[in-house]
Amino acid sequence: MFNQLKKSVNQLTPARMIAVYYFLAVFVSVLLLRAPIAVKPEVTLSFVDALFVAVSAVSVTGLTTVNISETFTVAGNFILMFVFQFGGIGIMALGTFFWLILGKKIGLRERRLILTDLNQMGLAGLVKMLKEILFLIILIELFGALLLGTHFLDYYPTWQEAYLNGLFASISATTNAGFDITGSSLAPFADDYFVQSINILLMTLGAIGFPVLMETKNYLAAKNKELFRFSLFTKITTVTFAALLIGGTLIILLLEANHYFAGMSWHKAFFYALFQSATTRSAGLSTTDVTNFTDPTILAMSGLVFIGASPSSVGGGIRTTTFAINILFLFHFGRGERTIKIFKREIPHEDIVKSLVVTILAILICFTATVILSMTEKHDLLKIIFEVSSAFGTNGLSMGITPELSTPGKFIIMILMFIGRVGLIQFLLAMGGKEKNQSIHYPKERVIIG
Amino acid sequence: MFNQLKKSVNQLTPARMIAVYYFLAVFVSVLLLRAPIAVKPEVTLSFVDALFVAVSAVSVTGLTTVNISETFTVAGNFILMFVFQFGGIGIMALGTFFWLILGKKIGLRERRLILTDLNQMGLAGLVKMLKEILFLIILIELFGALLLGTHFLDYYPTWQEAYLNGLFASISATTNAGFDITGSSLAPFADDYFVQSINILLMTLGAIGFPVLMETKNYLAAKNKELFRFSLFTKITTVTFAALLIGGTLIILLLEANHYFAGMSWHKAFFYALFQSATTRSAGLSTTDVTNFTDPTILAMSGLVFIGASPSSVGGGIRTTTFAINILFLFHFGRGERTIKIFKREIPHEDIVKSLVVTILAILICFTATVILSMTEKHDLLKIIFEVSSAFGTNGLSMGITPELSTPGKFIIMILMFIGRVGLIQFLLAMGGKEKNQSIHYPKERVIIG
Ligand SMILES: [K+]
Ligand SMILES: [K+]
Repeated sequence: MFNQLKKSVNQLTPARMIAVYYFLAVFVSVLLLRAPIAVKPEVTLSFVDALFVAVSAVSVTGLTTVNISETFTVAGNFILMFVFQFGGIGIMALGTFFWLILGKKIGLRERRLILTDLNQMGLAGLVKMLKEILFLIILIELFGALLLGTHFLDYYPTWQEAYLNGLFASISATTNAGFDITGSSLAPFADDYFVQSINILLMTLGAIGFPVLMETKNYLAAKNKELFRFSLFTKITTVTFAALLIGGTLIILLLEANHYFAGMSWHKAFFYALFQSATTRSAGLSTTDVTNFTDPTILAMSGLVFIGASPSSVGGGIRTTTFAINILFLFHFGRGERTIKIFKREIPHEDIVKSLVVTILAILICFTATVILSMTEKHDLLKIIFEVSSAFGTNGLSMGITPELSTPGKFIIMILMFIGRVGLIQFLLAMGGKEKNQSIHYPKERVIIG
Repeated sequence: MFNQLKKSVNQLTPARMIAVYYFLAVFVSVLLLRAPIAVKPEVTLSFVDALFVAVSAVSVTGLTTVNISETFTVAGNFILMFVFQFGGIGIMALGTFFWLILGKKIGLRERRLILTDLNQMGLAGLVKMLKEILFLIILIELFGALLLGTHFLDYYPTWQEAYLNGLFASISATTNAGFDITGSSLAPFADDYFVQSINILLMTLGAIGFPVLMETKNYLAAKNKELFRFSLFTKITTVTFAALLIGGTLIILLLEANHYFAGMSWHKAFFYALFQSATTRSAGLSTTDVTNFTDPTILAMSGLVFIGASPSSVGGGIRTTTFAINILFLFHFGRGERTIKIFKREIPHEDIVKSLVVTILAILICFTATVILSMTEKHDLLKIIFEVSSAFGTNGLSMGITPELSTPGKFIIMILMFIGRVGLIQFLLAMGGKEKNQSIHYPKERVIIG
């Protein structure tokens, strides 16, 4: 029977494997979260809310229709942590694995870089890679827990509480889950730049993509560093991360200069802007209630959240590489070029087309969701747009409307979290959209475009 | 000197020619609209407002920061009509001409269909085509004026007034200008289905694209109708027009069934939905104040307005063909195909990429405009989004915020009307984005997309 299962798993396309993993994880999570041990005795957790929290945790989004600390016991909190730990890492592992399989078929040698220890493509290779990812992530989490826990000795009465809170904060940041047990995210640390810096570092390490971590590890281990070359993916996504962090910080500083930041010290304003910019990648933690910001800031942040994190990471959205390729192609196209040349490499046309398609499909999906939610919910459009971006970017920031969502609204947000987390390309491929060879051809005829 | 001018004009790229024509037309319009004969003596028309009305009229948008009937004299109204007549037709002619030139270079034989009488590509060809377009449009306008004027005999005391109002209404609908001198658009005709039907017909003829009109004319004149083949462009844009009209009607009916249409007779509700759906292509006329609709309807209409009309027409937006190719490609891509097969033709890859690029660039531009306006204007986000779509789609519908725009806001809207009218592809090409041959090539390397 086990062999049969193994065979079926091997036969699944990677994209479908991700979907199956996702649904299995949600199913198990709902069972766990509705267990008597997880829910406080005086609370009734409806099936829809348990499902919502499960989808949110497996997709490491952090949106929730119920108050976590009021609903779940300490055991429930640990279950939740377990769910987003393995939800986040599992899909990241499968996503990376999937990309590697695709890479093998295409047979590009560059792929080998991140494949150093992972050149088995079967189930054994998957297990090995899962171990690698788990090892790296847990290492980062423990490192974060140590730093934060030691620092928290100033905040908590006992060392046990300090390190336990440090561990939870570190896992929540590294997996980009953004769930918090404080009830006000990192707002209590608005003046603690050390805690904020560590959190930015941890959520960036989780969201920048497994291949980047892997290549960096290989680079550090390499004997001859001059021969080592980082992949184009690593270069693009790292530069995009930096550009979005700096750009986002500047935009928030500029838009709030005469509003929320008026009369504030420069370093406090800077850290507010920096942290809120960093959190848009995928973490969803915050050092201030976003409703303090003005409309243009919220809108700009929606855009940043929609972009999301790297592929093969714990994040969601259209992904940094997709965004980067879109922007690069617009510039190249405007200059009359039909390829993208960057870092002395050309990006294959197929990848450019994929990026454009993913972006347009994502916008169509989010727009449709916004129209439906503006019908089912009685909230301002801005709040709805922010909620939709947050779900699609698996971010978890919210202007507070999640607990008030109608049941149809909850399902819309759940679908967005699923699509955002799995990634639209995987989603399309799971639907059967793998490139096929065409046998029938028609004469070509041009049409006027715009 | 004239020969030198002729030479310069011949050397201009068609895209730049359109931009030059646009700016010249705006310049002349501002002069005309600020002339003492045009403005009522008790009114002071600021330069910015004159510029706004001129840009709006040349781009046949119909948004206005001043009340037309309170600001302009009868002569002023005629000047305005003159401006949008030639603004609309001029850019349509240049746009078509541009496409033909492009077509000649590519050398596809299908292009010949609409070239029957227009195979001279120089300045003479342009003049000839301008004449053809003018002839067809004026024919349609006179036909509309006759029908509407005769019908208006029931509404107006004298036959002169009836036919004059019929003429203005016909021109406003056919050129999709959407300017009105009644002050409440076609709301007085909310129960007059004849007037509405004629208006829908006229605005569709103006917005469906000159090649469609030309081919239909050629088809009607053809001796052997079985040998005649409509171009792919005509087929796609006509089907898209029909699909958007029906789809838009159904969406508005559905979203307003329990709101604005509650308790209304089915035929009245149907005509409200039908007319407001038809007007989103580009006309901007309306039979009811759009603020009567609920948020989801306004949002959905913003989307329809953003799509806009056909290329080579009097409309704006990303254009029907761009939208159609996007949607078709999403479906084909999801099925694993990388071309679009439709009407037994294949759409060249270059056109698909163009459509995707135009759409993404348009969304980026409109998003940026929305963020800036949400900073400069003190209005609800929904009103701003609707205004931005309306300007980009050169539509002219508004939730009433145009007269209250700040000066920076006015300039943002003017830029959107310009870009929307000229069309993003032309805009990009005018910037120098014509496809160039590449001499330097780098090795290709794939990246993870999403
Ligand atoms: K998150
Ligand atoms: K219009």
